[in-house]
Amino acid sequence: MIHKATRSRRVAPSTVRRLSLYLGFLEQRRQDGAATVPSRALAEAGGATPAQVRKDLSFFGSFGRRGVGYPVAPLAERVRAILGLDRGHRVVVVGAGPLGAALAPGAGWRERGFEVAAVYDLDPARIGTAQGGLVVRDAARLEADLAGRPADIGVVGVPVEAAQGVADRLVRAGVRALLNLAPVHLDVPSGVAVTQVNLALELDALAFAIRAGGRK
Amino acid sequence: MIHKATRSRRVAPSTVRRLSLYLGFLEQRRQDGAATVPSRALAEAGGATPAQVRKDLSFFGSFGRRGVGYPVAPLAERVRAILGLDRGHRVVVVGAGPLGAALAPGAGWRERGFEVAAVYDLDPARIGTAQGGLVVRDAARLEADLAGRPADIGVVGVPVEAAQGVADRLVRAGVRALLNLAPVHLDVPSGVAVTQVNLALELDALAFAIRAGGRK
Repeated sequence: MIHKATRSRRVAPSTVRRLSLYLGFLEQRRQDGAATVPSRALAEAGGATPAQVRKDLSFFGSFGRRGVGYPVAPLAERVRAILGLDRGHRVVVVGAGPLGAALAPGAGWRERGFEVAAVYDLDPARIGTAQGGLVVRDAARLEADLAGRPADIGVVGVPVEAAQGVADRLVRAGVRALLNLAPVHLDVPSGVAVTQVNLALELDALAFAIRAGGRK
Repeated sequence: MIHKATRSRRVAPSTVRRLSLYLGFLEQRRQDGAATVPSRALAEAGGATPAQVRKDLSFFGSFGRRGVGYPVAPLAERVRAILGLDRGHRVVVVGAGPLGAALAPGAGWRERGFEVAAVYDLDPARIGTAQGGLVVRDAARLEADLAGRPADIGVVGVPVEAAQGVADRLVRAGVRALLNLAPVHLDVPSGVAVTQVNLALELDALAFAIRAGGRK
């Protein structure tokens, strides 16, 4: 289901981030049984003003009525469609570390549209162990597995020195988006999306901010 | 130890990110026993060109000699000083979830200069359990604990609906930097730094990129 009014291109990353925050809030309110939400509450969840919420959503079509607020279920469906979550995404995780564990099946990813289909590791000590209901597979089987059942998103959770090699293998096997958990830059061909999540990078940024703040 | 040539302000977040990547690479090379690294290898680790590396580092003083590369140990120390990692940072974690677990002591944070001093939770079922060598404390004790021993960085790892409240409490208790693991925007006073790490936000961004790419 693709809405005709939905435009996917030239949308700023900060807008995508707010849409994701709106969606999280809407799904929570839906679970609570709410039929509508005031634009102010939606704005707070996304760190935006009500005017910004209207702008974010009107870019993709018309929504909400002044004084009534936004209808929870239809808006959640619409934001899911805008974000591309109205289709499922198959995810494979390479590297069964602590952050990989946070991606294990059963942690609510399937409800959000992400099916964590397999977890791989390079380390013989981890291969064959259980992680979140999956048995960790030998990364040597990655290409054969993906040839049979392609994946949309690959998670690179291996040590720094192995990260680029695993990224290259995932891309060659048809993966179009990478979540990089290693603290190193990954080179990928144009057309492949990469986001990076690394706690060390974030803590370093906070240390730098504390240092800079203390010198003001 | 603060280098006179070090300037902390008006440095782009992307520069801080590259410095953090350079540091991770340098520390790995130091463990491997290398005395110098070629600028090309440093550039690759940071996703930059050798010219960008020179520019990043020259902003903070002079470093490296053409044809010789960069001296591993002195440069690592210098980058640590630039990032503010030449002093330790006390970290408290509120919310003993999977990402909080990745921050547990023993995962190498202390070597990087981050001392995870305490883990708290709001959930009685988690209070008193062990996590990474620490006993999870009742979040009700946060203010009393921080009055006795202040922390630099607070990690907000509680559910969405509790996140802002925990952030407010940490800031009132003197914490100057927050790592937000909840998928919600946090409002903080100016002068308090916030970074956000959330796997759902990253996966949503990748889903959007796949959708946008498929429509080109």
